Amino acid sequence: MKRWNIMLTGFGTVGQQVARLLEQRRERYRELYQADVRLVGVVRSASGLYDENGIDSGKWEDYAHTKQAGNPSWNALEFIKSAQADVLIEAGPSEKEGGPGLTYIRYALENAMHAIAISKGALVVDYAGLAALAKKHGVALKVSGATAAALPTIDLLQYNLAGCEVKRVEGIFTGTTNFVLTKMMEEGLTCAEAVELTQKMGIAEPDPSYDIDGWDTASKLTILANAAFGGQVNLKDVARASIREITSLQIETWKKHTKIPKLIGTIQKDANGTLTVAVELCAVDFTHPFASVSGTTKAIRVETDVMGDLLVVGGKSDPVAAAAAALKDLEHIMSR
Amino acid sequence: MKRWNIMLTGFGTVGQQVARLLEQRRERYRELYQADVRLVGVVRSASGLYDENGIDSGKWEDYAHTKQAGNPSWNALEFIKSAQADVLIEAGPSEKEGGPGLTYIRYALENAMHAIAISKGALVVDYAGLAALAKKHGVALKVSGATAAALPTIDLLQYNLAGCEVKRVEGIFTGTTNFVLTKMMEEGLTCAEAVELTQKMGIAEPDPSYDIDGWDTASKLTILANAAFGGQVNLKDVARASIREITSLQIETWKKHTKIPKLIGTIQKDANGTLTVAVELCAVDFTHPFASVSGTTKAIRVETDVMGDLLVVGGKSDPVAAAAAALKDLEHIMSR
Repeated sequence: MKRWNIMLTGFGTVGQQVARLLEQRRERYRELYQADVRLVGVVRSASGLYDENGIDSGKWEDYAHTKQAGNPSWNALEFIKSAQADVLIEAGPSEKEGGPGLTYIRYALENAMHAIAISKGALVVDYAGLAALAKKHGVALKVSGATAAALPTIDLLQYNLAGCEVKRVEGIFTGTTNFVLTKMMEEGLTCAEAVELTQKMGIAEPDPSYDIDGWDTASKLTILANAAFGGQVNLKDVARASIREITSLQIETWKKHTKIPKLIGTIQKDANGTLTVAVELCAVDFTHPFASVSGTTKAIRVETDVMGDLLVVGGKSDPVAAAAAALKDLEHIMSR
Repeated sequence: MKRWNIMLTGFGTVGQQVARLLEQRRERYRELYQADVRLVGVVRSASGLYDENGIDSGKWEDYAHTKQAGNPSWNALEFIKSAQADVLIEAGPSEKEGGPGLTYIRYALENAMHAIAISKGALVVDYAGLAALAKKHGVALKVSGATAAALPTIDLLQYNLAGCEVKRVEGIFTGTTNFVLTKMMEEGLTCAEAVELTQKMGIAEPDPSYDIDGWDTASKLTILANAAFGGQVNLKDVARASIREITSLQIETWKKHTKIPKLIGTIQKDANGTLTVAVELCAVDFTHPFASVSGTTKAIRVETDVMGDLLVVGGKSDPVAAAAAALKDLEHIMSR
């Protein structure tokens, strides 16, 4: 029985679901992988929780709700260092500049820990650098949780279609934005009203602009382009559309023509290998495969050389599903 | 650079495409897996072709078209034995009793060769036995080519949804049957006329009953139930529907009610873990996700505990796509 120690950075709703699923699946890991998987450390913004024997829900539930205050002596990296974990799971907020998640993941890979990212920031800023570090130290860098989570995207491109040339990817990658668009079309809500609803439901990012202005979709595309196509795409170069300025007149016009607005992210590979990456607001025909993808549902469609086209629709957009995607990555690491 | 010798059993249209893709992808395998992959042997019903340095298309193209006559001295197992390959790819016809494919795959696994099945016969007859052999000898038994090929099914259940509990699987698993149904509905063809068309197109199995009477779908379900759910399902116990007896009156009635007939295979897991496996002819509503899956297109829909539902539609139904699915399996073996 091999011992797998897990360090979890970020302990919001998703991080807590990771901790919960790790506990629920302990027996599964023993049976399938002969793995004794234990959550040994949790890192928050100003403190950490550590137990070399494993932290179960009895230990972390109170801790998760204690308020974090500024703590000048808190050194997360020292904490991570002393814990000597095998895998780091990064579940902090997605920050455009990478944020602490970048520091944590970089540290993990440099010290031969496998890294699983749920937050997108670090991957958007430096996927290539992190992938090179992982390769150098013989460990894995897994990104399912950061690339539409329960909807398989990176897996689809790298695993299910291994050996195929993928010529085009298009998808509805941000459940929140799709939910807002659906509410605007079906219930006549304004964008602001629908955003408020997503915040009440707990499915919005802390900064609504991240979803609404296409940053979330653009970030996922950037990661996919760099991870699955070996691209060198910068987030700032991705053409990006917003759903913020949609007017009631536009809504009426779409309805009249039975068109349905969708925020669609695309990666197009030209014959010479050049990648064009963009987020566009498209009014698709009601017969389009994405037309019926409503609410928080996501979708991806790929075009390949020899396997034809594939459309995947679904996958829950909630913290448990995001946590489950990260733990799928963990299983893939354990079965290497 | 590790040498990977491939033995190919069955050399019809699919087998030839395997040989062709292996040749086209040689450079890919070198770069990605540091693997020197060579097709060293080809087995047909009454003869074989062998070259320890690799058989390229210049060598096999004539051979593929020579007529096979009865040859009492031909011993395929002896031939396979002497070739000492690392991976056996079984691409013969799918026979209900397992046929030679079962003998070949069993021999391969017993002799620590990885096995990739495209034909379904052996897997339907004895998946559990073959999987146990693979485990015992530390090799892989891969079945993508036998379970809807370019449409990911076994991968979806075992890889993309690792860690989830899958409660229900339903799908359109036989492209030929779906094509026949589509032609009957859209062009008023009889079942026999549409079958004739599939034979002209080269997409029908040698025995049309295999597709039309639901054997193909039932076989794929049997393999999926046993491989992905650890079931002990026998093909003969799978309730099975045929599209042979559909009348023009039925067609008219479905049209009148905007229903669309689909041959749907399901695996249902009850709360106590019991699997119910069935092939049914269902007239689905035009809003059903399967309603727009027409022609040779296939689809699978799964319901999970924590990742929600996933629908996958597409994947070509032709010999190249089937070969590509088998070579996807090869890549997964090489990256183990």
